Amino acid sequence: MLFHVRMDVAIPRDLDPDVRAETVAKEKARALEIQRSGRWPHIWRVVGQYSNISIFDVESADDLHELLWSLPLFPFMTITIAPLTTHPSDLAVQ
Amino acid sequence: MLFHVRMDVAIPRDLDPDVRAETVAKEKARALEIQRSGRWPHIWRVVGQYSNISIFDVESADDLHELLWSLPLFPFMTITIAPLTTHPSDLAVQ
Amino acid sequence: MLFHVRMDVAIPRDLDPDVRAETVAKEKARALEIQRSGRWPHIWRVVGQYSNISIFDVESADDLHELLWSLPLFPFMTITIAPLTTHPSDLAVQ
Amino acid sequence: MLFHVRMDVAIPRDLDPDVRAETVAKEKARALEIQRSGRWPHIWRVVGQYSNISIFDVESADDLHELLWSLPLFPFMTITIAPLTTHPSDLAVQ
Amino acid sequence: MLFHVRMDVAIPRDLDPDVRAETVAKEKARALEIQRSGRWPHIWRVVGQYSNISIFDVESADDLHELLWSLPLFPFMTITIAPLTTHPSDLAVQ
Amino acid sequence: MLFHVRMDVAIPRDLDPDVRAETVAKEKARALEIQRSGRWPHIWRVVGQYSNISIFDVESADDLHELLWSLPLFPFMTITIAPLTTHPSDLAVQ
Amino acid sequence: MLFHVRMDVAIPRDLDPDVRAETVAKEKARALEIQRSGRWPHIWRVVGQYSNISIFDVESADDLHELLWSLPLFPFMTITIAPLTTHPSDLAVQ
Amino acid sequence: MLFHVRMDVAIPRDLDPDVRAETVAKEKARALEIQRSGRWPHIWRVVGQYSNISIFDVESADDLHELLWSLPLFPFMTITIAPLTTHPSDLAVQ
Amino acid sequence: MLFHVRMDVAIPRDLDPDVRAETVAKEKARALEIQRSGRWPHIWRVVGQYSNISIFDVESADDLHELLWSLPLFPFMTITIAPLTTHPSDLAVQ
Amino acid sequence: MLFHVRMDVAIPRDLDPDVRAETVAKEKARALEIQRSGRWPHIWRVVGQYSNISIFDVESADDLHELLWSLPLFPFMTITIAPLTTHPSDLAVQ
Repeated sequence: MLFHVRMDVAIPRDLDPDVRAETVAKEKARALEIQRSGRWPHIWRVVGQYSNISIFDVESADDLHELLWSLPLFPFMTITIAPLTTHPSDLAVQ
Repeated sequence: MLFHVRMDVAIPRDLDPDVRAETVAKEKARALEIQRSGRWPHIWRVVGQYSNISIFDVESADDLHELLWSLPLFPFMTITIAPLTTHPSDLAVQ
Repeated sequence: MLFHVRMDVAIPRDLDPDVRAETVAKEKARALEIQRSGRWPHIWRVVGQYSNISIFDVESADDLHELLWSLPLFPFMTITIAPLTTHPSDLAVQ
Repeated sequence: MLFHVRMDVAIPRDLDPDVRAETVAKEKARALEIQRSGRWPHIWRVVGQYSNISIFDVESADDLHELLWSLPLFPFMTITIAPLTTHPSDLAVQ
Repeated sequence: MLFHVRMDVAIPRDLDPDVRAETVAKEKARALEIQRSGRWPHIWRVVGQYSNISIFDVESADDLHELLWSLPLFPFMTITIAPLTTHPSDLAVQ
Repeated sequence: MLFHVRMDVAIPRDLDPDVRAETVAKEKARALEIQRSGRWPHIWRVVGQYSNISIFDVESADDLHELLWSLPLFPFMTITIAPLTTHPSDLAVQ
Repeated sequence: MLFHVRMDVAIPRDLDPDVRAETVAKEKARALEIQRSGRWPHIWRVVGQYSNISIFDVESADDLHELLWSLPLFPFMTITIAPLTTHPSDLAVQ
Repeated sequence: MLFHVRMDVAIPRDLDPDVRAETVAKEKARALEIQRSGRWPHIWRVVGQYSNISIFDVESADDLHELLWSLPLFPFMTITIAPLTTHPSDLAVQ
Repeated sequence: MLFHVRMDVAIPRDLDPDVRAETVAKEKARALEIQRSGRWPHIWRVVGQYSNISIFDVESADDLHELLWSLPLFPFMTITIAPLTTHPSDLAVQ
Repeated sequence: MLFHVRMDVAIPRDLDPDVRAETVAKEKARALEIQRSGRWPHIWRVVGQYSNISIFDVESADDLHELLWSLPLFPFMTITIAPLTTHPSDLAVQ
């Protein structure tokens, strides 16, 4: 099941620099781990923003919640979600 | 070059039913044609909306404009665009 | 899988009264049919609005899309969707 | 009498960790207590958000105010309320 | 139980003038009837707007819904509702 | 002359607890004083919010400004104002 | 008593051209009449908009309501009002 | 050339009280100075807000920018600007 | 003096096709005429929108108003204006 | 390829004054460097705002992202981007 997710990141300026660096590194490691599992097939950077637009392919909405909640930067993100379905004009389904 | 595009469609209720059917059919044909050219790699339906979220892969912003402007339903669409770039946590670029 | 759905209805004033009555009747019949199938466990009227707030329990996001798209009043609705998951403070999961 | 309530939680980052843990624990205890009283029949987590969507079943608006005001996390919540009534297409009232 | 209600009225310009006059007259009659019943203790015109701000005193949210839904101008109104409760600084409760 | 006023209160979390308690107490005293003068005939708590909706009955807009500016919590309030006038459907003016 | 008023005008395109011309002419006549009475001391056109920003100097909010309601273009206006008072840094009050 | 300017002031609570008092005093002195030069013909306090609505009469947009930028409270202001022109219904131009 | 202007065009669907074509042709002619006068140095199409972003270089705000008001498509445009001034980091002013 | 970019700057008040001065100086140097490369052909100050409106002329969206991300004030900016294309009424393309 596909979900469209936009994450806007705002790390507080007063976060300890070491904690910050560590959190960002952990975020990347976790993101790669989820991608390797096949459940995060697309991630793009939005130009000029500390944001990404992603597609998740999960078993359920619960599954999506767990994945997002597990992201180390989750507490500093504003997340917007839209469930997706196949488009009738998608070339792949003709 | 990648662009994230959301199209919200609102066909006027008083459009002649034949014109409507013909326009929707032409839209689908044009969408498939662009997809076949490789410039519209993803199109998804947003659940519960007469809307799609798409990824375009074009030569330039001008190219994107021409494609969108050529869509038969263009006059009835609200279009939102965000340029995309590679995300540093994308598994494909590690 | 649970989804929170709000539907705001705006039937155009110039819809033929017979068509209107028929569409509203069909909407009710379809709503009852989906409820009987167990996939629409809650529907409430929002006080003072021609709107409902509903909970859907479906197999997938695709399933939800098909249900909503099948509603006779769909063309006259603004629909807002939020995927839900179990709350850790829900008495039922203690 | 039914009310639809959405609570978006934003605990300040500089809250003392012990106070935070204690407040969250008290919140859960209080939420369970109210649920046991039958006045909070539904609580769901919104996917990807530190938020819940709830249904309250109370004697009056005053009653609802007292319940919400008594929540330990109340000072850190943005609360949105809509009064509900029976929907004429609800299967239960046919 | 008190509810704060704002009604913004927008009667369509193409409504038949006789129907319009009749509807406005019926609205006034109904508004007076509800006021006489004690359930609509305050109604004010918002300066420079075709709008009113009102206080309703009803048995329940269902009761409020029925009253609002019964207004002849209901189909042409945008309605905003906030439940009220006693304020601790209200002189009347000292 | 009547004005509809909504006050949303947000006392900063880091305000000294004693200052806070004292300011809240002074606010209540001042609110009662104005009510006793007849210039603040209605004050209600909005359910689930640290907010009030009030009706002021003052000599002039200047008068209203002075009253609001004199409130001890004024620096922590977001205030929304709408001038009111008699509604032609008000039972009292028939 | 001073009020700041913004009027955004949107005359429906399908208004009969003669009615339109007549209404616009009446609006101008009425605006001049009110200005001559001293109650509408300032009116400016907002650049690039079919809008004006005005200052009214009236006896009361009721007075302002009557003036605005009497404008022939009132049904086609969106009106925004803010009560004004003397500014402590106004040169005239030093 | 006339510009309509609204300034909403939000002085940070943690600004040193002496700095605050000094800045507010300097702001007033500067405001009076500009008014004396004839370039700030109107300034009003918005009732219930720490805001003013002003009319500036300047040589150019650059001139306006310099004036606003020179205000001691500029860093704590949200400023909204609309260029104005003569209104055809202004009594002064008949 | 420079102004940043965005024009969003929405020609009503029921405009007579000949009138539409004629109005669009006149708009283009007028736009070219103003550009030739040097007062409209930049005009760009916003990708995917029936909109332009333009820079005007005019004598005064009045001048800008007259130019915009003279555009044949003016009645069908939503116009947003921001006055501009030289940026201190502009290479041209170093 | 042209992009319209608006940057709204909000430097935190508690930034060390030396760091602030240094960052602003570096920002200016970087802005001039990019302008010299021909990729930032226009930059204007928005009157009354700590903001600029700019036109970038870049090879690709990726290129734009790198430029913006390299700005020393980037962490303190809100950035809005719109891709541009040639306007059919541009005098230069007749």
